[in-house]
Amino acid sequence: MPVGTLASVKGVPQDVLEELGVQILLGNTYHLYLRPGVEQVRKLGGLHRFMAWPRAILTDSGGFQVFSLTDLRKVTEEGVTFRSHLDGSSHFFSPESAMDAQIGLGADIIMAFDECTEYPAHRDRMLESMELTLRWAERSKRHFEPHKDEVPWNHVGTAALGCPGERSSPVGDELSATQEAAELCSARQPRAAVSTQALFGIVQGGMDLALRKESAQRTIEIGFPGYAIGGLSVGEPRGLTREVVESTLEHLPADKPRYLMGVGTPEEIVEYANLGIDMMDCVLPTRAARHGLLFTSVGKISIKQARYAGDEASLDPNCGCRVCLRYSRAYLRHLYASNEVLAQVLNTVHNLSFYLDTMRAVRHSILLGKETGSSCVWSRPKP
Amino acid sequence: MPVGTLASVKGVPQDVLEELGVQILLGNTYHLYLRPGVEQVRKLGGLHRFMAWPRAILTDSGGFQVFSLTDLRKVTEEGVTFRSHLDGSSHFFSPESAMDAQIGLGADIIMAFDECTEYPAHRDRMLESMELTLRWAERSKRHFEPHKDEVPWNHVGTAALGCPGERSSPVGDELSATQEAAELCSARQPRAAVSTQALFGIVQGGMDLALRKESAQRTIEIGFPGYAIGGLSVGEPRGLTREVVESTLEHLPADKPRYLMGVGTPEEIVEYANLGIDMMDCVLPTRAARHGLLFTSVGKISIKQARYAGDEASLDPNCGCRVCLRYSRAYLRHLYASNEVLAQVLNTVHNLSFYLDTMRAVRHSILLGKETGSSCVWSRPKP
Repeated sequence: MPVGTLASVKGVPQDVLEELGVQILLGNTYHLYLRPGVEQVRKLGGLHRFMAWPRAILTDSGGFQVFSLTDLRKVTEEGVTFRSHLDGSSHFFSPESAMDAQIGLGADIIMAFDECTEYPAHRDRMLESMELTLRWAERSKRHFEPHKDEVPWNHVGTAALGCPGERSSPVGDELSATQEAAELCSARQPRAAVSTQALFGIVQGGMDLALRKESAQRTIEIGFPGYAIGGLSVGEPRGLTREVVESTLEHLPADKPRYLMGVGTPEEIVEYANLGIDMMDCVLPTRAARHGLLFTSVGKISIKQARYAGDEASLDPNCGCRVCLRYSRAYLRHLYASNEVLAQVLNTVHNLSFYLDTMRAVRHSILLGKETGSSCVWSRPKP
Repeated sequence: MPVGTLASVKGVPQDVLEELGVQILLGNTYHLYLRPGVEQVRKLGGLHRFMAWPRAILTDSGGFQVFSLTDLRKVTEEGVTFRSHLDGSSHFFSPESAMDAQIGLGADIIMAFDECTEYPAHRDRMLESMELTLRWAERSKRHFEPHKDEVPWNHVGTAALGCPGERSSPVGDELSATQEAAELCSARQPRAAVSTQALFGIVQGGMDLALRKESAQRTIEIGFPGYAIGGLSVGEPRGLTREVVESTLEHLPADKPRYLMGVGTPEEIVEYANLGIDMMDCVLPTRAARHGLLFTSVGKISIKQARYAGDEASLDPNCGCRVCLRYSRAYLRHLYASNEVLAQVLNTVHNLSFYLDTMRAVRHSILLGKETGSSCVWSRPKP
């Protein structure tokens, strides 16, 4: 899932995202809550309609962003008080208000409000934090259930608020692969049927495998249509990340989407998909692009380097994206060195293309593995 | 002509420019001379190939940019010594070196090196400056003629330097209206025929109509395939601009392209086309877009205003561009207010679309006027 923090994948128009084959975007509740505000998005029909994006959207709960505001937050049983990174104003998120915010934004998949445990942490702290996340998961679900019909697009017969609800919630790898431009939400007609969002639970437990197991089991007891593994990519060594993911996956049901939050490099997303992860999100492809770091089939390229100033080759000889088909490394290097905005646009398009191609290859291999029953290297073991 | 200062129309990919119907772009010699450098562009096959733009390009002579560096330049008979706005390094442009630079960049249309007379100026100063520009025009042509075959794409049989030279130089309103993606310069084959650039002369003379007439006549005596009116849009009142343009046009041949430099608003480009101007360039549509100022059929819109925060209407109800067809004013306002890069991309696409639509309407009216012989308001009088 490319990250579209403020209802935009930085620099890339929505039609280009569609052309790239993006099936689902991630939006950040914390950022959207501050700008343009949940009520504004709700009044405008929800995120899909607001940003003219007819395909799927997932919003995080805001917990991770608030967690990142180390010096600007205070956690209590009730929730988190934090200061805006924009103007220092004081705000409060609880499981209930995080649900209200995400219902108002109206994404297809929303996340329970959790506490992302810091790294490193003592076992006592991991345990205490995990217990808090479990209580918050219960409160999230308890608040979501009676309010889930309040999504902005869930008003049968209300003319201006249609479109997104007409689709069934796309979940995991059941997303339809091709979607027509005709999908685009003109949405002047009333909705045909009622539908709601999918609320996913989040497993925490720090880097302790026993706590991860307990967190998984008790989150499953609460019951969600999908499960995320949170609290990773917070500074721990990559080997430890993998160990925790592999161990936690054993305790998550294979017939529900399993979402690894905040991961990762192209190599990592292949590795984790191979372990059984269905969904991932990461700012890496888009953020790296803005810093001139490009992922290619021939390795990483730092396009700012002078060695590319006269390089007429396309960025990635094995990539069919519109950037690689048209422009030379020399031109991309010039745009970056000259601080041209087009550098960010083109670099982001390529990096997203590389990530999406990588995931397409993974899906293809999984299908081949399933169909042939072979032990293909990409085939995904399901317990 | 949209302005692509550094071989990029800021924020807009080349395929989108093609889709918008852009027939010719302007590149700034001063900026390209500094970054990536003329020799670098020449080695990479010229501007067309460097920026993957198969349609026409015009480069200015660098004179106007150097003129803008008020405190960083020194003008002598020989040329202009100036300091780079980037690093303060010292450089020198003469008519000869400006020709060399523009031949090396390899645009389709290049401009004589002129002095843009400041405003206001005494008549003595206007006369002196006009005489200098006339001497520089002669030197420009004298240097261009024996060197005009040195364009980077003019090497018959040289494998890597083909494409742009295969087209005839598109000039004025003889530009072909539709061009296929197939045009895109893969250019691994040798060129089929020799062709050269078109060097245009520039009329100066300040705001003095008699000097403008003299400048036009003596520039025509030197002889160029097209003529520009320079030295306007330098701070004078709009009424005076129009007076000088109208008066100067009378002395320029109607069977050669007439190019008004640095103009203008949508109303102005219609007005000047109606007077007989064939070509114009201006940073207004692209620069205004970056500041959230949008041109529409219902007037100018400053998208940053809070009044648009909840406005679900499309930006311009009469515009068929991909921005107006997809996004609401509320979304565009959010992108701008949140400092999202996509704001610049979408705003620029719309403003260019509005300008190009305006010129398409002008051309259509001219054709109707010609074909019917009517005195249609848009029909262009040719002396």
